[in-house]
Amino acid sequence: MNFTPLGKRVLVKRVEEANTTSSGIIIPDNAKEKPSRGEIVAVSSEVSELKKGDEVIFGKYSGNEVTLDGDLYIVIDVDDIFGIIG
Amino acid sequence: MNFTPLGKRVLVKRVEEANTTSSGIIIPDNAKEKPSRGEIVAVSSEVSELKKGDEVIFGKYSGNEVTLDGDLYIVIDVDDIFGIIG
Amino acid sequence: MNFTPLGKRVLVKRVEEANTTSSGIIIPDNAKEKPSRGEIVAVSSEVSELKKGDEVIFGKYSGNEVTLDGDLYIVIDVDDIFGIIG
Amino acid sequence: MNFTPLGKRVLVKRVEEANTTSSGIIIPDNAKEKPSRGEIVAVSSEVSELKKGDEVIFGKYSGNEVTLDGDLYIVIDVDDIFGIIG
Amino acid sequence: MNFTPLGKRVLVKRVEEANTTSSGIIIPDNAKEKPSRGEIVAVSSEVSELKKGDEVIFGKYSGNEVTLDGDLYIVIDVDDIFGIIG
Amino acid sequence: MNFTPLGKRVLVKRVEEANTTSSGIIIPDNAKEKPSRGEIVAVSSEVSELKKGDEVIFGKYSGNEVTLDGDLYIVIDVDDIFGIIG
Amino acid sequence: MNFTPLGKRVLVKRVEEANTTSSGIIIPDNAKEKPSRGEIVAVSSEVSELKKGDEVIFGKYSGNEVTLDGDLYIVIDVDDIFGIIG
Repeated sequence: MNFTPLGKRVLVKRVEEANTTSSGIIIPDNAKEKPSRGEIVAVSSEVSELKKGDEVIFGKYSGNEVTLDGDLYIVIDVDDIFGIIG
Repeated sequence: MNFTPLGKRVLVKRVEEANTTSSGIIIPDNAKEKPSRGEIVAVSSEVSELKKGDEVIFGKYSGNEVTLDGDLYIVIDVDDIFGIIG
Repeated sequence: MNFTPLGKRVLVKRVEEANTTSSGIIIPDNAKEKPSRGEIVAVSSEVSELKKGDEVIFGKYSGNEVTLDGDLYIVIDVDDIFGIIG
Repeated sequence: MNFTPLGKRVLVKRVEEANTTSSGIIIPDNAKEKPSRGEIVAVSSEVSELKKGDEVIFGKYSGNEVTLDGDLYIVIDVDDIFGIIG
Repeated sequence: MNFTPLGKRVLVKRVEEANTTSSGIIIPDNAKEKPSRGEIVAVSSEVSELKKGDEVIFGKYSGNEVTLDGDLYIVIDVDDIFGIIG
Repeated sequence: MNFTPLGKRVLVKRVEEANTTSSGIIIPDNAKEKPSRGEIVAVSSEVSELKKGDEVIFGKYSGNEVTLDGDLYIVIDVDDIFGIIG
Repeated sequence: MNFTPLGKRVLVKRVEEANTTSSGIIIPDNAKEKPSRGEIVAVSSEVSELKKGDEVIFGKYSGNEVTLDGDLYIVIDVDDIFGIIG
């Protein structure tokens, strides 16, 4: 799959969040509700803050879902990404 | 047909999206609902990010439909185009 | 009639759109509904993208109707004109 | 009467529009409804596009009515004036 | 009383408008309704268009009323003042 | 208490307004309703228009109340302060 | 845990506010309701006004909650932080 985002956009693959904390405690569903995690798959040439492979946190309802080769991704503006993990 | 978009606009011919994934699985209609694919047919002189022939993804409800020589196109602002495929 | 638009405005005479396609098929009314065609009759000194005589497409509900010498025109901002035909 | 508009404003005296076209046809009231005509009576020092005596067309609901020496005028931003007649 | 407006603000003392025109005709209340007259009492150091003593016209519902030493004034942005009388 | 406002903000201690005018007339409650008085307690390094000790007037519903060491203050943007008294 | 905020954002750990004032008076719940306190845990490279360890006050409903290693934080724009305590 080859997709080049335009503008200030990046392409993100949503990451399944673990249901347990590092200390093994199970997090109830509503505590995980608001933000989402994902991995950067492609970035626009106008985006310098992020690169392929970065794991990021973003608002759950930000961006637009796109299907490429049958897989679901999110195209999202870099301004809607809260930050980088790790 | 000869049409020159003004401003930051491009003229797009919507592309029928395949109903099956690359692995042959049929995608139900609602999974395809949000974004649309199209081919760039004409660009304004103010648009440098795209050229004729580019296959693009854009929001389903972005832009305005226009009929030229009996064919349906979409005039859309380049800022509403998510990215280029391939 | 002599009218000089101000700002980024142009004066447009709406053009009756043909009810048949180039291949002779009659277009039902709702398929023609959204954009409108017109001919540029006058341009503001601040508008360089368009000139008298250009045939243009614009949003049906854009601009303001004005009556000059008993004829109906549309005063419309150049940013609301999608592009030039021909 | 002496009034100096501030900002991008001009002072306009509304002009009674003729009820007949140049070819003598009576225009029904609703056909005249949207824009208004007026004559420029005073301009702010920040306005260069218009001068005293210009006959202009503007949106019927633009500007603010003011009473000066018992006469009714409209104070209106130059950006809300569509153009100059004649 | 000593008050220095900040930003683009001026301090205005509302003026009672005469109920008769210069030709002696009594103006009914609703004809006077929309704009208000006042005298400039103090100006911010950022305001150059107006000076103390200017008689101005402004929108009836613009600005904020303030009470200083028991008297009522209006603090209003210079952009909301239509113009200067006299 | 030590608090440094950020941005264009200042910290204000609301001042009880006297119920009588300088001439001894009692002001009814609703006449005092709209704006509020206060004393500047701290200013952001980005604010140059105001200094500690200034008595100011501001919109009653502007800013945010904060409790510091059990006392109530208002953090307010300098643009929402109408002017300085005295 | 390692998180780098993007844009003008900072990462904040909410601080439990004491229920008593410095003079020992218990503050009823509603008096504490509006703003929140927190400690800066990480700042974007675009933020110069704040550093790790700063104790800040911010609007209770500003920012977005994120869970990192099972702990709850707030990602918030520096413009929504009222000021620094201490």
